[in-house]
Amino acid sequence: MKVFLLLSPDPIQPLPSISDPSVGAAVTFSGLVRDTEEHRPISSLFYEAYLPMAENSIREILGQLSLQHPCTSFELLHRLGHVPVGELSLWIRVLAPHRAEAFSLLTHFLDRLKKDVPIWKTKPST
Amino acid sequence: MKVFLLLSPDPIQPLPSISDPSVGAAVTFSGLVRDTEEHRPISSLFYEAYLPMAENSIREILGQLSLQHPCTSFELLHRLGHVPVGELSLWIRVLAPHRAEAFSLLTHFLDRLKKDVPIWKTKPST
Repeated sequence: MKVFLLLSPDPIQPLPSISDPSVGAAVTFSGLVRDTEEHRPISSLFYEAYLPMAENSIREILGQLSLQHPCTSFELLHRLGHVPVGELSLWIRVLAPHRAEAFSLLTHFLDRLKKDVPIWKTKPST
Repeated sequence: MKVFLLLSPDPIQPLPSISDPSVGAAVTFSGLVRDTEEHRPISSLFYEAYLPMAENSIREILGQLSLQHPCTSFELLHRLGHVPVGELSLWIRVLAPHRAEAFSLLTHFLDRLKKDVPIWKTKPST
């Protein structure tokens, strides 16, 4: 499985679409900063990561998950630092021959990302 | 839940992104025509629909699913007629406050779409 990762303070620009005639399903997840956090209004969130451990951890998780849910490619863009309300903090695209593998890999990955990867939000600004 | 449906023979143009500060998750599914069908090479698929029953059926399914998996919006573009290899036959975007509902609604919907909606592929051309 091809893997592309970019963790950066720059605003996320979703990647252009890829042409691969063996791909039948593309599933994209966009995580956006909402205007409330724990029922309180906020104007932005601040994301920090422990690099390069975060990237190594993501690659390790993907190595495990791709054995059970084989996909063609996995691309992840994660923004770090201040992310204003309404903007993307995370963008992931998974390509696979069929949709079942793409959804399985992506949903399992998102669970592991929250639990096992050293990327965290600090207190939001109001 | 806002619903937008378009079933058309025109090539699919994914819709522009929507700004809604209460939305924390956008999940997009793209279905593409692969270069093989049942292990044989093909150059295109042909999709037919029984309209307007297909649209009514989609709306009914969404009405049921949105009770259990409440989301903000659901947009579906389905191409009909010839769809060449590598091009989109289906594009769906689900927006929700949180990702769990968006993934649940979308995966359940895709199962029901295949099973219960009068849209079908005819024999592929080689």
